[in-house]
Amino acid sequence: MSDKKGILIILSGPSGSGKDTVLNELVARNDDLRVSISMTTRKMRQGETDGVNYYFVDRDYFEKKVSEGKMLEYAEYVGNYYGTPKAPVDEMLNNGINVVLEIEVQGADKIRKMYPDVVSVFLMPPSLSTLESRIRMRGTEDEETIANRLFIAQQEIRRADEFGYVIVNDTVSEAVESFETIIKAEQLKFSRNKHLISEVTGNV
Amino acid sequence: MSDKKGILIILSGPSGSGKDTVLNELVARNDDLRVSISMTTRKMRQGETDGVNYYFVDRDYFEKKVSEGKMLEYAEYVGNYYGTPKAPVDEMLNNGINVVLEIEVQGADKIRKMYPDVVSVFLMPPSLSTLESRIRMRGTEDEETIANRLFIAQQEIRRADEFGYVIVNDTVSEAVESFETIIKAEQLKFSRNKHLISEVTGNV
Repeated sequence: MSDKKGILIILSGPSGSGKDTVLNELVARNDDLRVSISMTTRKMRQGETDGVNYYFVDRDYFEKKVSEGKMLEYAEYVGNYYGTPKAPVDEMLNNGINVVLEIEVQGADKIRKMYPDVVSVFLMPPSLSTLESRIRMRGTEDEETIANRLFIAQQEIRRADEFGYVIVNDTVSEAVESFETIIKAEQLKFSRNKHLISEVTGNV
Repeated sequence: MSDKKGILIILSGPSGSGKDTVLNELVARNDDLRVSISMTTRKMRQGETDGVNYYFVDRDYFEKKVSEGKMLEYAEYVGNYYGTPKAPVDEMLNNGINVVLEIEVQGADKIRKMYPDVVSVFLMPPSLSTLESRIRMRGTEDEETIANRLFIAQQEIRRADEFGYVIVNDTVSEAVESFETIIKAEQLKFSRNKHLISEVTGNV
């Protein structure tokens, strides 16, 4: 197992669908899984830490990294940049670690083109009203931003068909279990076990 | 969930890989899963029952069913016909039952063409020597048949790349768990949950 490459997983879903909560639980339960830390130009929210939730940088720095080709993907969303530095992701995959990228829906396309065997998961809120109350509970955004987020959420949900799997986030524990099930099944894909044919027939 | 279609699953693997044992345990543990009963012209083995393990029929009857277009697939293997009657499979799928077809490796192709969303699983013995001892333990075959089966097994294992998933049958319980994991993950595929977009956005 030690020479096996990790699986790259995209997690996307509208703001308020619970991506962070699901990922925190997932990482706590799985030693062989990490979440890639994104870089963003958006303001730090209360309770967030630089280098843990995101690398918080300014626009000049972000644009420099993009022009140097050091970003796996990036997207602009509600006036801010969000992106994934490439090198740490490749290093973890080569060490057999499964890596989750939490990215905006519009960023998923680019990853799929670069990593054809990426596993993509869309986290779906049970309903739009659940989504709205989750965003309001956060208490960090004004009415205009909330309305804007809900409008974008609807558009994003209509793009769920671009993802391989969909998990309805009714409860966090069920969503985490579904996520683990997907990873286990993906590890059983023949395409990730091609070595077995020569190993079993003895023609190693 | 009740109006959801069942998933069609192909299970294949060389003779002696343990398909029957895994399927018996799988059916015992999952109410919503059935194994399609195949039709064959081979002789009944000790401990087998007509209508349970197979429908045991003669060559004339089998060929009549084929010519009437009532077989989903069929193949000739070591001088005998093996095949799957179509109607009961479709009925179970429409009732939301997951259906497993245990078929010869060479029969898998035909099913894939008819059911593009079929899930295909290859059951892999841990090694060729394990396979040989399992076939010998059965004690029902002479040396020539055993040698023939092992030769065919090697050829079949080299065709494992035609299958979506591969499960190494080290222990029955682990193999059954892997099978259940695959089914659960497949149920999370977006392609089997297209209704969610309109349900969640409210445009039902």
